[in-house]
Amino acid sequence: MSRFISPSTAALKPYTPGEQPRVTQYIKLNTNESPYPPSPRVREAIDALAYEDLRLYPDPDVTGLRDAIAAARGISQERVFVGGGSDEILGYAFMAFFERGDTVVFPDVTYGFYPVHAQVCGLEVRTLPLRGDFSLEPSDYYGAPGHIVLANPNAPTGIALPPARLEDILRANPDRLIIVDEAYTDFSPQNTARPLLDLYDNLLITRTFSKAYGLAGMRIGCALGEPGLISALNCVKYAFNPYNLDRVSIAVGTAAVSDTDYLQRTVDMILATRDWFVPELEAMGFSVLPSAANFVFVRHATLKGAYIYDKLRENGILVRIFAYPERISDHLRVSIGTDGDMRRVTDILKSIVK
Amino acid sequence: MSRFISPSTAALKPYTPGEQPRVTQYIKLNTNESPYPPSPRVREAIDALAYEDLRLYPDPDVTGLRDAIAAARGISQERVFVGGGSDEILGYAFMAFFERGDTVVFPDVTYGFYPVHAQVCGLEVRTLPLRGDFSLEPSDYYGAPGHIVLANPNAPTGIALPPARLEDILRANPDRLIIVDEAYTDFSPQNTARPLLDLYDNLLITRTFSKAYGLAGMRIGCALGEPGLISALNCVKYAFNPYNLDRVSIAVGTAAVSDTDYLQRTVDMILATRDWFVPELEAMGFSVLPSAANFVFVRHATLKGAYIYDKLRENGILVRIFAYPERISDHLRVSIGTDGDMRRVTDILKSIVK
Repeated sequence: MSRFISPSTAALKPYTPGEQPRVTQYIKLNTNESPYPPSPRVREAIDALAYEDLRLYPDPDVTGLRDAIAAARGISQERVFVGGGSDEILGYAFMAFFERGDTVVFPDVTYGFYPVHAQVCGLEVRTLPLRGDFSLEPSDYYGAPGHIVLANPNAPTGIALPPARLEDILRANPDRLIIVDEAYTDFSPQNTARPLLDLYDNLLITRTFSKAYGLAGMRIGCALGEPGLISALNCVKYAFNPYNLDRVSIAVGTAAVSDTDYLQRTVDMILATRDWFVPELEAMGFSVLPSAANFVFVRHATLKGAYIYDKLRENGILVRIFAYPERISDHLRVSIGTDGDMRRVTDILKSIVK
Repeated sequence: MSRFISPSTAALKPYTPGEQPRVTQYIKLNTNESPYPPSPRVREAIDALAYEDLRLYPDPDVTGLRDAIAAARGISQERVFVGGGSDEILGYAFMAFFERGDTVVFPDVTYGFYPVHAQVCGLEVRTLPLRGDFSLEPSDYYGAPGHIVLANPNAPTGIALPPARLEDILRANPDRLIIVDEAYTDFSPQNTARPLLDLYDNLLITRTFSKAYGLAGMRIGCALGEPGLISALNCVKYAFNPYNLDRVSIAVGTAAVSDTDYLQRTVDMILATRDWFVPELEAMGFSVLPSAANFVFVRHATLKGAYIYDKLRENGILVRIFAYPERISDHLRVSIGTDGDMRRVTDILKSIVK
């Protein structure tokens, strides 16, 4: 490492993204990508690209895509921020709303990037344990000791908090910002906090195009909130990376968000696959948390998670295992692929568990 | 503004990017884009995109593009970092190498983003004035009171510092990191600090695909430095936005960097245009700083910069004027377009200056 690295950076514990194997012989169920390609309108948008215009900077305000998202969500454009996936947006949000030394609160089991963003921003982290069944008890968050970040549905558990319970948390913390990371909300739209946006100025929702829209490769996400929250995000963006979405991502995102039928069709297919896959797992001795997302979080009654992980890998199937926190280190997170993918997983698992 | 904005963010003075007009009737000479489209290989790369693969996250290590850049620059891949344009890379570099409270040193007249990045990172800024002719005196930087950031060629002046003089600064500050922002170096390759990379571990070079490569719309940049510096940049990237380049940007950048002939041809055309345009300006009473870049920085003998700016705009020509620092507030920065663009500018200017 360079002798010029700053002490803060040297102390950083970066997030470890799921492996992106360069060879393609794996059935890749480790990063919750969609098994389906994006809307055909995405291909049309790419084919229609004015290649000559790539020489020009993109619109830094990303007006076209923000308009399209606003139209799809039934809100006004000034309530929409866009960025390079929800990771970038969460980073901007931590910078925009949390001052060094502030406390940020989230569950002990949740998306592993939150502690990393907190460390980058010099925040104190207070984790509140989920219950034994990995459910979140809203009252744990009443009068929280800091701003709150909640993934809903939660990752890697897949468990959703009903919006009425989220509202209890918003109401109990009128002077705290609650960031709700809805990366997986397209798989359980009944749980979105979207309707609460009109009622609470302390709610910021983040979304991604990386999951249900099948666009992980294009790095597109958005945040929804009252216009003042969006303005604060823009302050950070214009102080860090004003042109944060390129021309192709803007065109592709605009095309994808316009195709609500395709989104619905692919989500329905993934949920149908999940619906038959879960009982298969249970029949093999797995306990499966109730999933509101495009993955399941499972643990076997007798076999260790690491053993099953290795066996799956040997058989060309990549899933995700987490070393920390320890209470989930024996679990596996398995993305829902196509029916064919999951039939193959079922067959291999049957041979592993005998 | 939201009541949740952090005090630090509320105090931010973001960078103001050059206007990106949504109507296209302007000859756009305000953000130093190339007047030429990117290499035809870029179009081929887009046409060859596996649309189905957009569902998958990109390679977070961006190995393919880093290999291509390393090959083009004759260095090893572990000396190459890539990111979303040099703005993002400079932001990461400030985070990676400068601790809050550190001092960072740069000229009083230079790229306006450096003070913004410094503010985001909580740094003290020490600006050293360029000489009256806007040249940089290397000895001003000997024993500098902090790490150093230099644009070379400088922006918005266009003046280049010869590498031997840059080496004097590197040698005089062995324990300071010197970041050399070579956004415009493709227009005067004789001035690159690239050969010094093998000799100095305190040199980090940043580059962009937004200028000579004609890819401002795709947000691609790179940094070159010894492997320890690159590792530190990766620490920040993996703690902030691990997938910072999307699949299309990676494919497009790889295609562009492989086409050195096309780069040379377009650079030659731009320099040839600049070569006839400068004497035209001088004949009209403009003083023109010696440019090593794809723009000229000019001031008229009798007419005010703001007056000429407005007149050009009325006539459909966008150039750049800077309110700060005051010593350049009467200058205009004019990007070099096609011959046709600059003939039109010349004609309009003749009618303005009479």
